[in-house]
Amino acid sequence: MTLSPTDRSTIRRAKERAATDRSALYEVLDRNLVCHLGVIVDGAPRVLPTGYAREGDTLYIHGSSGARSLRTGDQVCVTVTELNGIVYARSVFHFSVNYASAVIHGVPETLAGQRKLDALRVLTEHLAPGSWEHARRPNKKELAQTTVLALSLEEAAVKIRTGDPKDEDADLELPTWAGVLPIARSFTKPAPSADLHADFPVPEHVHSRML
Amino acid sequence: MTLSPTDRSTIRRAKERAATDRSALYEVLDRNLVCHLGVIVDGAPRVLPTGYAREGDTLYIHGSSGARSLRTGDQVCVTVTELNGIVYARSVFHFSVNYASAVIHGVPETLAGQRKLDALRVLTEHLAPGSWEHARRPNKKELAQTTVLALSLEEAAVKIRTGDPKDEDADLELPTWAGVLPIARSFTKPAPSADLHADFPVPEHVHSRML
Repeated sequence: MTLSPTDRSTIRRAKERAATDRSALYEVLDRNLVCHLGVIVDGAPRVLPTGYAREGDTLYIHGSSGARSLRTGDQVCVTVTELNGIVYARSVFHFSVNYASAVIHGVPETLAGQRKLDALRVLTEHLAPGSWEHARRPNKKELAQTTVLALSLEEAAVKIRTGDPKDEDADLELPTWAGVLPIARSFTKPAPSADLHADFPVPEHVHSRML
Repeated sequence: MTLSPTDRSTIRRAKERAATDRSALYEVLDRNLVCHLGVIVDGAPRVLPTGYAREGDTLYIHGSSGARSLRTGDQVCVTVTELNGIVYARSVFHFSVNYASAVIHGVPETLAGQRKLDALRVLTEHLAPGSWEHARRPNKKELAQTTVLALSLEEAAVKIRTGDPKDEDADLELPTWAGVLPIARSFTKPAPSADLHADFPVPEHVHSRML
């Protein structure tokens, strides 16, 4: 299955960066934790960061039931971006970043009942693998305070830039450094909550996320 | 000067996370490199990642002159988010993330002439400090291919979450680990471009960004 089936999810700028296979979309979504949800409120765009998770070709987004950005039955745009490096070129014009981004368009559905609970498990396990078994599950009141949306991944585009700067031939002999400064993201030492018993060990499902 | 002067930039959800002083806005913007620009295209929201930089109370955004998302004279929303940790709670409901985000609303202005060139310097220096002096400046043709927008920071909101999970009292004795798994971001070893002379040293303005 390929990506970009509609006009608005067809990448026009820097087409060589467009990834056309669905696995690239899955990888960008599965590697990251925060999306930017775009909605229209009172005629103006609004972009808010929120948690998400993917299951098959569905993206789950969740938030407080009171959040205005989750009340929509209208079109949304969800974007996930990871920044992987800064690209230094011989000319300012060719400075760039190495990145991967996924942009998804669609009308989300609000989940209820068992589907909502299943989606919350997927969301929890994406944010914090192993936690659905380890922590207390949501009760009725907590479920009511949480909104979970499901958005189809049918209409999506992925852009990826990797590698060296693309300088003009005429600039190659300039006395200017060119290359990539990579950006790494990592989990560091878990910090126990102040209200946790001092001898409570960091469980394996948390500890193992550190490099 | 305080933040949140308008209805839509007033934070409603998790108000205790709202930062009300302008320096918090500056810090979030100055620490990060990529924003998510929200615009309306054909009646639907569109959210695209792009570079930005701040100068005083102005945010500069730049991109290709061909990009549809930069052609607007309409309302935009620009959001910058940094993810600082995963918050493990005793209950799934109280799982969260430590983060800081800035959300800016306004109608951007397209820059030209000296103001455009000045903004490009600020953008370049934000992405890659020291590079405006080190690399070749944009020529006329390159300037024409670049669009630079200026957006006032007047209407902005900042949210910051830090620290431990906020568990229910009734859950405190559950046999469940609680705490924060911090997320660190860092620059790693610069990778010279394949077309750079082998003995070209990594300049100080690049090298010094590594930890």
